[in-house]
Order: sequence, then structure tokens, then C-alpha cells
Amino acid sequence: MDVSQLWEDLIRPGGGRIVYVVVDGVGGLPDAEKGGTELQVARTPNLDRLARESACGLLETVGPGITPGSGPGHLSLFGYNPLICNPGRGVLSALGIGFDLKEGDVAARVNFATMNENGQITDRRAGRMDSETNERLCEKIRDRVRLDMDGEFFFKTVREYRSVLVLRGRGLGGDLTDTDPQQTGKPPKDPQALNRESEQTERLVTNFLKQSRDILSQEQQADTLLLRGFEKYQPLPSLKDRFGLKGVCIAEYPMYRGVSRLIGMDVAPESENMEDSFDTLRELYGEGYDFYFLHVKKTDSRGEDGNFEQKMAVIEAVDKCIPSVVELDPDALVVTADHSTPASMRSHSWHPVPVMLRSERARVDRVKTFDELACIKGALGLRPGVHLMGLALAHAGRLKKYGA
Amino acid sequence: MDVSQLWEDLIRPGGGRIVYVVVDGVGGLPDAEKGGTELQVARTPNLDRLARESACGLLETVGPGITPGSGPGHLSLFGYNPLICNPGRGVLSALGIGFDLKEGDVAARVNFATMNENGQITDRRAGRMDSETNERLCEKIRDRVRLDMDGEFFFKTVREYRSVLVLRGRGLGGDLTDTDPQQTGKPPKDPQALNRESEQTERLVTNFLKQSRDILSQEQQADTLLLRGFEKYQPLPSLKDRFGLKGVCIAEYPMYRGVSRLIGMDVAPESENMEDSFDTLRELYGEGYDFYFLHVKKTDSRGEDGNFEQKMAVIEAVDKCIPSVVELDPDALVVTADHSTPASMRSHSWHPVPVMLRSERARVDRVKTFDELACIKGALGLRPGVHLMGLALAHAGRLKKYGA
Repeated sequence: MDVSQLWEDLIRPGGGRIVYVVVDGVGGLPDAEKGGTELQVARTPNLDRLARESACGLLETVGPGITPGSGPGHLSLFGYNPLICNPGRGVLSALGIGFDLKEGDVAARVNFATMNENGQITDRRAGRMDSETNERLCEKIRDRVRLDMDGEFFFKTVREYRSVLVLRGRGLGGDLTDTDPQQTGKPPKDPQALNRESEQTERLVTNFLKQSRDILSQEQQADTLLLRGFEKYQPLPSLKDRFGLKGVCIAEYPMYRGVSRLIGMDVAPESENMEDSFDTLRELYGEGYDFYFLHVKKTDSRGEDGNFEQKMAVIEAVDKCIPSVVELDPDALVVTADHSTPASMRSHSWHPVPVMLRSERARVDRVKTFDELACIKGALGLRPGVHLMGLALAHAGRLKKYGA
Repeated sequence: MDVSQLWEDLIRPGGGRIVYVVVDGVGGLPDAEKGGTELQVARTPNLDRLARESACGLLETVGPGITPGSGPGHLSLFGYNPLICNPGRGVLSALGIGFDLKEGDVAARVNFATMNENGQITDRRAGRMDSETNERLCEKIRDRVRLDMDGEFFFKTVREYRSVLVLRGRGLGGDLTDTDPQQTGKPPKDPQALNRESEQTERLVTNFLKQSRDILSQEQQADTLLLRGFEKYQPLPSLKDRFGLKGVCIAEYPMYRGVSRLIGMDVAPESENMEDSFDTLRELYGEGYDFYFLHVKKTDSRGEDGNFEQKMAVIEAVDKCIPSVVELDPDALVVTADHSTPASMRSHSWHPVPVMLRSERARVDRVKTFDELACIKGALGLRPGVHLMGLALAHAGRLKKYGA
């Protein structure tokens, strides 16, 4: 039995408010020259003070050695076993832009890309095309592509070079291979159905790609589309149904609003920037939500850029926002991440992320700084990320006793 | 596969003796004024010395965020997955008073309670009625209640305001809702069958309650009965069958003797007090048992009272008894708890409990005091409570190598 099911059985009405501040990719690796990890070297008096008032630990969000994508990383923190629930990037992208996915829709994430005369990819992100161009090209493709199908398709801008394709029709399978070769110098791949039910989808997507390339051939900024993360959409049981939590997501990026929608959370309007997110949290606090999820993106972005200094700078900016959340004094306040993104690796990694939980009922330990090594000695220990929601529920007084 | 099943396969004949000292609810939370947790502030030279000779750690007895009842908490320590084995309070109460439950019996825990003229509960424990009154009332009810059933019922005193009802008959289901509203100011609920097989039980219980209330209406101390924890009794595979352990339980309270009977342990006569329990352990040691379980109750009781000082006092009394167990020099000596009961919460809690294991084969660590924070740095780490029995078996030389 999955322990998260036990929490469902033990939920009691009422209880306190839970706030998650998820600092994406905040975990890192020590850099000998810099004198530690990004978190260790950054000046973070507020995070450190919070650590001294909290129970600290480390989370392995998905599993040993597993480098989580943003979807599984977050689902795990929300108490959904990420080995069972693993939505595709397409579904998350569509939900992220507020697209009203219906059960059975097939979604795929799309990159605009450039090719050379030999049909080899030269830039998988089409020069990080701006969102306006993206919208213009999406509209053009929507207007001109004709698919012979019993249903309809949607082709929508996400942001910059990213868009999303959704096919809606009777009996479309969602098990297709990616067309993105994941490196330059190679041609796009053909989409391939992985089972019988997805063959019709394969034909539609192949046709869609052919027509799109013809349309883009008249354009400067992009020559082709790369598709990945095909998936047929099935909504997950909601946070409300599972744990009695009415939740709201505050995020700058579509992806995280998408994961939140997937589990039935409300979604605040897109934040302008991180400071705006923290302001929104303060505004929404007291609006009747039980669970507040605030997502900080830039730590991950700067980690993926391989920029240790800038990642540190983002961490220091987060630190400045922390007192405004502590002031709200939620019944359970969690600061953690969905995965590590060490600048030295320029990518997500499997290394556990630090976590701290501040609550009147927390067993405050002797951890004095919020970082990957200090948290090893925390009262929460090293544990799977999916444990976090149970701990948050318990500390917020939302779980009954188990057994007599 | 549940790892406890692997231990079953690896049991070898012979091996050393295991002693568990379970200090109920000993884990707590730091109190800023007192300067730490109950365990930290109490003067415990003997427990601390034992910690220095042991491998230490922390156990999460049932799961993350799960507040264990005594049944699941203990079963976990005994190597029974508490998410699979979760006996009801009725069964544990009946076993606890030495009642010879038969497979298929339906048991429920009973409180004597008082009501006002509107039929609302005024005291769920009937002024913590004394055991003598309880026995007199039980006898009266036993003598006068007539149930139209193909079988028989038993109504027995547990202690103070608590008793137990057992229905024995062909095909009685045990899935009924509690009649205890769990708060004063509300009337008792009606028992409701949760499935078809339990409908006959519902009729019998409803009838039993009606007649009992009539009988009690002539009494001063109690007006009604509150029933909870209905369950059909199914014995669990015994400690002997699973792990080759002939076990004995030494406890002051019925509940813990009940859990022990459930897994086939012998039960020493009810202890007068804690010191008596430790004396009994010394007397029984060498009587051919492999596994000795000594239960200390009062740490939990004082925690539930919210009395930090008195919980400390009980801990200090336990400390004085510790040398007498160390002197026996068992092959594996464990001191731990079934759950935490922080005085500040006045209830069981989900916080991990400290554990120490003394054995010639233990990897002794650098933990110098037996408390919740010191044990974080111990060699056993933070782990599920169900791991403990495997560790005890291994340290007592009772497990073979796995695989070639």
C-alpha cells in the first residue's frame, strides 16, 4: 500500500494552512573554487534563520539516482507517487497555458527549430524566437493546416520558441515517439506509434508536420517543428478529493501552473517575476485556500545555464522574499525544491534537495543554515519526496491517528 | 515484497535473546522554556551510558506524518507491517484482559458514559469510574440483557470506565460504525453496518445498547455505553511461526498484553507498576524465552496529560531501572517507543522515536545521549519502525546470509 493512500483515509475536516515555496533546482554541488554549493556560498540570512526555526532534512524527490523532470518532481512533493503518475510534457504544457484539456485529448510539446539545407537541425530553439513571432506562426499554421480527422486540432503558443499541439477526436492513442532528435546536426525523426490505438494519431501528426514544414519554408525564423512528450490526457484525482486541500498555484511559468491544474488546484494569474509571486501569495493568503504553492523558476534556469554566480544571485533574491512568507505564519511552511540543478552540471540532477518545515508542531533540530550538507543532520532525515505532503498535512493538524 | 517476509525465510535455529524496552510515547518536542524535549531535559545517566554503548537512530513507526495508535505502533516494532495488520481496539481490549477470543468473534471497545436529560453525552468516561463499579455494572448487564442470537455475548470489565463487548455466533460481520461521537454535547450515534454481513451484528448491538441503557437508567455512575473499534477477530501469524521467537510480554496495561497475545506471545501476570515489570523481566530471563517485551506506560500517560515535568519524572524513573536490564546482557537490547507523545501536544504524534540497540555486534556510533536530536546522528539512521525486528534478529545472530 502506498502510504499516500493512508493519508487520504486519515484526513480530518479542518486544520491549518500549508505553504510550499518550491525553489526550482536550488540544490547544487560543491565547487572547490567558490567554496561550496550555490546555496552555501550565497548570503541567505533569512533562509538560515528559517532553518533554525524548522525541522530540516533532504528529499530524494523521485528515487535514488533518478533525475526528475519538473512534472514528477512536483507531483512527488504534492503527495502523488511519481512512479505511478507521470504526465507527459505535452499535457503539462497545454494545462500550463490554461488550455482546457478534455479527457482523451492527445497533447505534445512543440519546439520551433531551424534546419540547414541538408535537413539537419541547426538550432533546437529557433534562436530562442520571441513569443510574438511564435503567435504569428502558430496562427498561420492553425489557419492553413487541414487534417482529415473526425475531430479537431489545436496549436497554441506557450512562450518564446515553445508551443503545444493538441489533437481531439474519438479513439486517438497517445503513445508516439518524439520527433525531437535532442541534438543539432541530425534531422527530425518521424513520429512512430507504439501501439495499434496510436496509429491514427501517427498519421495525423505526420500529416500535420508535413504541412507545417511547407508553411514554415516561407519563413525566416523557423523551418520546422520538433514534437515530444506525446500523451493522452487523464486527469488525476485532485488534491481536494485526496487530501481535502483547496489549493492555489502562484508561478511565473506555464509548466508549473499545468502541474497544479492537473491536480485540481486553482491557478493565480501569471506572475511578472518572483517578487510579484510573493506579493500574490500575500494577497491570496486568507482567501480560503488550504494549500499555497509558490514556484520560483530562475534558480533552475541559471543552474541550467551553468552560471554559478547568477544562480547564487537568484538564491539571494529569494532570501529577501522569505520574511514576507514567514510573517504569514502558516501552520506548515515548507521551503524545498523539485530537484537539484547544479551549475556545474548545467542540468537537473538526482541529488537530494534540502527541505525545511516550520510549524508549531515541528521538531526543531540543530541545523543552522539551509543547505545541502547542513540539512543532512536535520530531524526530517533523508527521505523520498512523496513523504513531504504527509508531513505537511500532519504538521498542519490535518491527519487523524491511525489505529487504536 | 515486504522485507519482513525475507527475515522469515532467513531465520536459523538458535541464536541469542532479544529484549525490547518500549517506553511508550517517550519521544517529544523541544520546549523553549524547559530547554529541550522531555528526554533531553530529564536526567538520564543510565540511558545515556547505554546510548554510548549502542547503535542509535530514529524510527518512524508507521509512516511519514502518521500518528500511530498503540496497536499499529507496536506491531511495527514487532516486525508486522502496520499498513497491512491493523487490529481494532475491541480486539486488542479483549485480548488485553486475557479473554480467549476465537476466530470470527466480533469485539468492540466500550466506555461507560454519562448523559444529560436531553440524551447528550456529558462525560465520555463516566467520571473515570472505578474498576469495582465497572465490574458490578458489567455483571448486571450480563445478567439481564437477553439477545435473540444463535450464539452468545460476553461483556467484560477492562479497567476503570472501559469494558469490552464480544459477540460470538455464526456469520457475524464486524464492520460497524462507532457509536462514540468522540465529543461531549452530542448524543451517542447508532451503530451502522458497513456491509451486508454485518447487518445481523448491527441488530444485535442495537438491541444490546437499548437494554443496557434501560438497566443503567437505575444507576448513578453511568447512563449509557459508547462502543468503538468493532472488529472480527483473525489471529495473526505468530512471532514463533514467523521468526522462531518464543516471546513474553511484561506490561501494566491490558492493551499491550493484547497486542502481544495477537502474535502468540506469552503474557506475564499484570505488573503492579513499572519497577515490578523490570523485576518480572529479571525473573523470567532464563526461562527459555527468546524475546522479552517490557512495556512502560506512564511516559505516554503523562504526555497525554500535557505534563512535561511529570513525563520527565517517569523518564528518570525508567532510567533508574535500566541498569538491571543491561546487567542481563541480552544479545540484542533495544530501547525505543511505539510513537511520540509530546507533552505540548497532549496526544500521540507522528514524530520519529529515538531507538538504541546494544549488542556485541552493534556498530557503536558517537551518540552520547539518548534523545530525539542526538539520535539523528546515530548509526541506525532514520527508518521505518518495521525495520527494527530485522535488526534485532540480525544482532541476536538469528538470520542467515541471503543468497550465495
